Amino acid sequence: MTSEPLPPALPVTDRTRHRRLREQGSLDRAELEAILDAGFVCHLGVVLDGRPVVVPTVYGRDERWLYLHGSVASRSLAGDTPVCVTVTHVDGLVLARSVFEHGVNYRSAMVHGTARKVTDPEEKLAGLRLLTEHATPGQWAYARQPSRKELAATTLLALSLEEASVKTRSGAPDDGDGPDAGLGLWAGVLPLAAAWGEPAADPALPAGIAVPEHIARRAGTRHG
Amino acid sequence: MTSEPLPPALPVTDRTRHRRLREQGSLDRAELEAILDAGFVCHLGVVLDGRPVVVPTVYGRDERWLYLHGSVASRSLAGDTPVCVTVTHVDGLVLARSVFEHGVNYRSAMVHGTARKVTDPEEKLAGLRLLTEHATPGQWAYARQPSRKELAATTLLALSLEEASVKTRSGAPDDGDGPDAGLGLWAGVLPLAAAWGEPAADPALPAGIAVPEHIARRAGTRHG
Repeated sequence: MTSEPLPPALPVTDRTRHRRLREQGSLDRAELEAILDAGFVCHLGVVLDGRPVVVPTVYGRDERWLYLHGSVASRSLAGDTPVCVTVTHVDGLVLARSVFEHGVNYRSAMVHGTARKVTDPEEKLAGLRLLTEHATPGQWAYARQPSRKELAATTLLALSLEEASVKTRSGAPDDGDGPDAGLGLWAGVLPLAAAWGEPAADPALPAGIAVPEHIARRAGTRHG
Repeated sequence: MTSEPLPPALPVTDRTRHRRLREQGSLDRAELEAILDAGFVCHLGVVLDGRPVVVPTVYGRDERWLYLHGSVASRSLAGDTPVCVTVTHVDGLVLARSVFEHGVNYRSAMVHGTARKVTDPEEKLAGLRLLTEHATPGQWAYARQPSRKELAATTLLALSLEEASVKTRSGAPDDGDGPDAGLGLWAGVLPLAAAWGEPAADPALPAGIAVPEHIARRAGTRHG
């Protein structure tokens, strides 16, 4: 476990090299971090008995490590295990003149590596804090923090952010200057965006407990 | 390739058995179909050189098969390959009194099986139609349909919907009746929802081409 700074350019490996022309690949670490920071649920892929298993789980990060809530994957993670973590934001449908040119505007980050179970209590607490603050900034200080027993019952995984890649697509369809442009068909993008709603209090909550500001202020704001 | 109807109860296998108490598992086929129909981007997991790779891709379905746009995964799919396809809708953050009880409200479907490349031109055309209509109902009849050459250049995968499972969480935090309920902290759910925006015309589009009704009517409606 190291906290040496990572280079701003993501390394080119067999798994991160971009092969398709139409996908805009990037090996820019800042772009990777922006995509990770825009979400809080990833898809974690592991190999179990030779077969892939993909589970959604929550994550947080620092400069060096991606921390994942690991209980959903715990049965498949006996020790250090190769994993692939993918975070995707869908920004809209690309509606071209031809079905063939249809697509999706999106931002996706893929992190490859070997996940380790975090066992050091100090790193586990710090990782859980990152994970909690990543999903809900301000919540770590507000909520009751984990007891020693709860900490022991939590499986946290750490994955180096060293080997990763980014793919994005944005903008209009690609057939605006081809022969299909003369078909007289509408073409463009139908945007898709997620937003936070109004906080819904637990029905068990006694009267008179106000929604804290760090939660209330997110209502109506965009997510992703 | 068969089109025999599938049983309404999803089979219990080593991969679909639900192990955790806090996750609400389901083996109800109608619930599976509802989750699949609420989205159009899945995360496809494959094993490549012994390591997992998880890529986002679009899908459609009929009663029997899930069809996936396969070009992103084509290099990893030499023949029949074990895959795991996961579709997740994130419905909100579960903000409990204790960090330990924090979680996510979500609906997730996982389909396990062996993907086959669709080679029969008739099935490929039908599969592409399902995929197109799944993302944008009405678009198959509106847009220019694939030429023979385009059809040949498209990689379509089919995955049986036989072996699948569903996990969901909804509702309030779980610590409303425990000792933490007396802490005086706010607890509840911060909902998250996606919605379609206003169609954005391709800047290359000539003036006077109206947004077709099947696209225009989605603006402002919820997705997921």
